Amino acid sequence: MKVAVVPGDGIGEEVVPVAEAALRRLHPEWDYFPVEVGYGRWKRCGAAIGAEELRALRDADAVLFGAVTTPPDPDYRSVIVMLRKELGLYANIRPVRGPGADLTIVRENTEGLYSGIEWDLPGSACTLRVVTEVGSRRIARFAAALAKGRRLTIGTKANVLKSDALFRRCAVEEAEAAGVEWEEKYIDALCLDVLMHPDRYAVVVTTNIFGDILSDAAASLVGGLGLLPSANIGDDHALFEPVHGSAPDIAGQGIANPVAALRSAAMLLDHAGDREGAAAVEAAVESTLGAGVKTSDLGGSATTVEFGEAVLGRLG
Amino acid sequence: MKVAVVPGDGIGEEVVPVAEAALRRLHPEWDYFPVEVGYGRWKRCGAAIGAEELRALRDADAVLFGAVTTPPDPDYRSVIVMLRKELGLYANIRPVRGPGADLTIVRENTEGLYSGIEWDLPGSACTLRVVTEVGSRRIARFAAALAKGRRLTIGTKANVLKSDALFRRCAVEEAEAAGVEWEEKYIDALCLDVLMHPDRYAVVVTTNIFGDILSDAAASLVGGLGLLPSANIGDDHALFEPVHGSAPDIAGQGIANPVAALRSAAMLLDHAGDREGAAAVEAAVESTLGAGVKTSDLGGSATTVEFGEAVLGRLG
Ligand SMILES: CC(C)[C@H](C(=O)O)[C@@H](O)C(=O)O
Ligand SMILES: CC(C)[C@H](C(=O)O)[C@@H](O)C(=O)O
Repeated sequence: MKVAVVPGDGIGEEVVPVAEAALRRLHPEWDYFPVEVGYGRWKRCGAAIGAEELRALRDADAVLFGAVTTPPDPDYRSVIVMLRKELGLYANIRPVRGPGADLTIVRENTEGLYSGIEWDLPGSACTLRVVTEVGSRRIARFAAALAKGRRLTIGTKANVLKSDALFRRCAVEEAEAAGVEWEEKYIDALCLDVLMHPDRYAVVVTTNIFGDILSDAAASLVGGLGLLPSANIGDDHALFEPVHGSAPDIAGQGIANPVAALRSAAMLLDHAGDREGAAAVEAAVESTLGAGVKTSDLGGSATTVEFGEAVLGRLG
Repeated sequence: MKVAVVPGDGIGEEVVPVAEAALRRLHPEWDYFPVEVGYGRWKRCGAAIGAEELRALRDADAVLFGAVTTPPDPDYRSVIVMLRKELGLYANIRPVRGPGADLTIVRENTEGLYSGIEWDLPGSACTLRVVTEVGSRRIARFAAALAKGRRLTIGTKANVLKSDALFRRCAVEEAEAAGVEWEEKYIDALCLDVLMHPDRYAVVVTTNIFGDILSDAAASLVGGLGLLPSANIGDDHALFEPVHGSAPDIAGQGIANPVAALRSAAMLLDHAGDREGAAAVEAAVESTLGAGVKTSDLGGSATTVEFGEAVLGRLG
């Protein structure tokens, strides 16, 4: 198993080593190699990622990813958005688990408002929201498979957007074909209802930017982004990253919460077929938190490294 | 003062009469006239709104609006979206007030993903997100004026969308020009932070669909949509409506919460220059809720009409 390790920028550089250490503890036999990507690289050599790095990522069986900073420079294109497309990572899986919530957001990860088809005109700027039948059916099938035996909620703005009318139709048809119980909600109402009644949701499928916003909003159910992992899955590649960003405001202080990165490593293990390892990392994180070892975002005083050591200690 | 009264569909028909009664109590001298618009009209005569109704709304000094049902019929265009454009109602003002929250969302109301510029291709569907400099500056000026002496938060996805890079630039420039303290946040992070730390926000300005989602999410801070009013303001027209929809699931039972409609009437009074009347309606609603008279969504047992009578009784 070849694992590319991409700390990226900001707190990515602090939390990824913790997650990598957990993977190495369980799988010392795997091949880990670091890949430099992000704003740091951009500042150093004018590009956030080079051909060699991209090749290395393509070559990996899995990518453990931290976070990248996107400066408000209009010429800078987000690396992670680019990677999701380049590696065909069409499914962004974001489990939200905590007291009262156990739902998984399945976000379409390659199209919609992230088409990259944009242009400026005098006095206006346009972004094309592209929804394809192939892309919609693919993500809907993925979500339906995950929702088997539970319920699939389809989130759209089909009351306003014709592009979502297509997404809705495909999602409904795939849910029916998979024999999965489904319901649909407009994305605004869905955001609210997920917050008010998280217990009513199991798997939610939605388009790219709606999934982006919904998963951040749902993070409030479990105390914020510090805890949320994600998997970006495609037919040939897979990339695992915390939902949180590079958090420049707290970077370099050693206080970042590595739970999201650790849980992303657990998702990587699960994807690699090591269910036991995944469960062990999850359990070690739970038990560490349960013992009151917490970083400051959760009201504790543990540093990133201290938290990591407590988890590693429990991994045996 | 000419007030067009549009109950619309579903619970709109139940809550608008309560709000209208409050207006009539304070301003029996105003001219009120009903206008039929919505899905009901569409079913009856094939169009959700006719030329005559549009003329009547144009003719009014203010519109008191309920809610309209948008069926998932691909040929049906949302009436409220159309009205916002036809009447030039570019600013959608959504105050979110309750214990721990006192913020106002200023949503651009006429462009962005609601451009209506959409097309189907074989195997795909596209919606054009259009952001104009004129539209962005106009809403930013509006929001900056409202934020004077407090703080303006600018919510965008400028790290991904070029159209939001334009919005961001205009909003920043207008905030600077108005001498208003401002900050910016990406809309996903903003949704989360508004939920986690509502006290940090005073006025938030954002584009159309982000404002749509953010205001529903923020409603969770104050117990849901039953309480939230909104004003749609343009240079020549103004329309006041609850943020909630027509709620077909509970329509016809007489249990809908009329607070959002009453508060929308208060916003109408304020807009008409009657600050005292607006404050009186707000106070009557507060005092009614404070006395434990509540509809079932808030855990009470009052009907729509009972709640309305309790408020009217307090209006004197
Ligand atoms: C950093 C940004 C481009 C990214 C996104 O919008 O997808 C992030 O918010 C996320 O959710 O992974
Ligand atoms: C009904 C729908 C078209 C509308 C919108 O999307 O603006 C509603 O959600 C709102 O927030 O007023």
